[in-house]
Amino acid sequence: MIISKSNRLQTVTEYYFSNKLKEIDRLKTQGHAVLNIGIGSPDLPPPKAVLETISKAALQDNVHAYQSYQGTPELRNAIQKFYQKNYDTALHADTEILPLMGSKEGIMLISLAFLNQGDAVLIPNPGYPTYTSATKLVQAKPIFYKLSQENNWFPDLKELEKENLENVKIMWLNYPNMPTGKLATKKLFTELISFAKKHKILLVNDNPYSFILNKKPMSILTVPDAKSVAIELNSLSKSFNISGWRVGMALGKKEYLKAILQVKSNMDSGMFYGIQKGAITALNLDTDWFEKLNETYRFRRKIVWKILDKLNCTYSKNSVGLFVWAKLPKNKKAIEFTDDLLQNKKVFITPGTVFGTNGEGYIRVSLCASENMLTEILNRLN
Amino acid sequence: MIISKSNRLQTVTEYYFSNKLKEIDRLKTQGHAVLNIGIGSPDLPPPKAVLETISKAALQDNVHAYQSYQGTPELRNAIQKFYQKNYDTALHADTEILPLMGSKEGIMLISLAFLNQGDAVLIPNPGYPTYTSATKLVQAKPIFYKLSQENNWFPDLKELEKENLENVKIMWLNYPNMPTGKLATKKLFTELISFAKKHKILLVNDNPYSFILNKKPMSILTVPDAKSVAIELNSLSKSFNISGWRVGMALGKKEYLKAILQVKSNMDSGMFYGIQKGAITALNLDTDWFEKLNETYRFRRKIVWKILDKLNCTYSKNSVGLFVWAKLPKNKKAIEFTDDLLQNKKVFITPGTVFGTNGEGYIRVSLCASENMLTEILNRLN
Repeated sequence: MIISKSNRLQTVTEYYFSNKLKEIDRLKTQGHAVLNIGIGSPDLPPPKAVLETISKAALQDNVHAYQSYQGTPELRNAIQKFYQKNYDTALHADTEILPLMGSKEGIMLISLAFLNQGDAVLIPNPGYPTYTSATKLVQAKPIFYKLSQENNWFPDLKELEKENLENVKIMWLNYPNMPTGKLATKKLFTELISFAKKHKILLVNDNPYSFILNKKPMSILTVPDAKSVAIELNSLSKSFNISGWRVGMALGKKEYLKAILQVKSNMDSGMFYGIQKGAITALNLDTDWFEKLNETYRFRRKIVWKILDKLNCTYSKNSVGLFVWAKLPKNKKAIEFTDDLLQNKKVFITPGTVFGTNGEGYIRVSLCASENMLTEILNRLN
Repeated sequence: MIISKSNRLQTVTEYYFSNKLKEIDRLKTQGHAVLNIGIGSPDLPPPKAVLETISKAALQDNVHAYQSYQGTPELRNAIQKFYQKNYDTALHADTEILPLMGSKEGIMLISLAFLNQGDAVLIPNPGYPTYTSATKLVQAKPIFYKLSQENNWFPDLKELEKENLENVKIMWLNYPNMPTGKLATKKLFTELISFAKKHKILLVNDNPYSFILNKKPMSILTVPDAKSVAIELNSLSKSFNISGWRVGMALGKKEYLKAILQVKSNMDSGMFYGIQKGAITALNLDTDWFEKLNETYRFRRKIVWKILDKLNCTYSKNSVGLFVWAKLPKNKKAIEFTDDLLQNKKVFITPGTVFGTNGEGYIRVSLCASENMLTEILNRLN
């Protein structure tokens, strides 16, 4: 290659799953029936009304030109109402809501909008790997903060206060938490807002799992004065099984969203009109939708619990979200354990270390697998 | 705002159009019928078969999960065949083609993938403003190269050789050229490839206007050994009137595309399956489509020429693409001229200076306006 890659690319490695999926493909080519319960890609169909809306909208012949960076007012209003109804927030639809092409896009946009080279960023360990890669791509410095079972999978703010926080500009939060399935409390969010104000840190709560196996969705924006230091990311991917549509949003103070929009307007464009229309239909659905969806996930989770019992793992029955996070038997290493399982039983489960060093000794099982597949896995372990 | 924006955001200003559109909205609110021929957003309907495909695909209930970052093999194959048929290239569908969410996304991804802070980037003046903003967002340094009517709107490579090119890592090209409507020649591309090899510069030809009022689409990748230093961006936005879908692509050497993918996989995801299916239908269409499309644009362009005659402007009748680029009467300034027109005739045309200092003395008229609107503008000028 005559022209070399940028230095920022030396800092990010290939996504663990990307390599693992290649290995799984090889096994499949060799004739093995690999059962994959490692990936959190919703397999259930989206609401029928949502598909009918996008399908119908796509047939109109005058809706295919560039869309506004900020989405249609109708979409922003639907998000506003959805948030008000489910999270009890009072956001301004025109200035405090910014539709995004997935919340993953938001992680990079926020990093570009607020971080300078050398700034520090607080990132949960274990946590979603994209917080780290976005931080590194803008050449800022990740400082991992520990989440542990002993501390309820909450950040230990007393410990954090002992560190040098001078260069910290962003703290990533992710409640309901992935991978641990832990819910936040109002008290935790209130303490975090105080902490962020004291140290002038932008808190970003990544909140895509609110509606999965959870009846108490909570937004960090409901804490008094939260908006001075906090923004929230959310997504329709998991709530409505449309992860492939790329519909997410940032919510919060006008000035913060303006900075994000400034990056966004220089690198992409508004989302397809049909997708916006479908998203509006989804946001306006009755809560019946979530009840039915969660019925399926509850059923699947019971089988997953049996699988984990068979594997001598322990887990909380109160966790929420699309995964079950489980502790391995004593002295077992996550990668060894999951590699063994893949080799001997042809079952793929995600090792906790994918999410950071504090994931050692844990595995994460996805609920995005049919009852049939889960039952077959259970049988293979018998 | 307690947390400040990143330094990179101090370098980019609000897009000219964004401010101007607000002014136009104000005039409209005051009751003025403003006619806007400033913006290049295709107003004609997409091919009917394309809409039917996306509409049908959207109704399937098992195609809404995350898609591969690299798009479906079927989409990459369709792009490969389209490029072979129209540009006579021989690209490898799996490694030399990368679907993108619009080519605009590509400009930022390429900047992130190859530029370090302080690197220099050659950018055409006049040229598409996004090359500059993406360069500034990664804190690299734009070096504007002159395009002038005297030099056929081609870069003057002899002049460029006199400059210090040591830190230059990327050179942006855009042929068929926007805003000037100038076609490249094989000779120009060949000279550019030699120049890029000599100076170890990555050439990126942004090529979205090939099929508009042009019968000789040309890819820089057809120059022998071009792939060692050149990549191409393309888009379905203008060719098939689906700018709102965000379908673009990068084409070129495997290693370069891998670097782009490394950025992309950390910041977004693959595109909606229905959009990919619709794009495949578009790419497989008969060339009849372009003939019919250009019939309309040719008709519109005749009226635009009359408008420009009325304004005492001069222009080339051989230019291609979605715009007519015209020289103002002697001593007229672009912004004064277009502001006068907006105030007195309530007609908005883009001043050439939006595209850089060398756009002074020019205006750009869009062909994305109906025959009726263009005729009314002509009448207003009478």
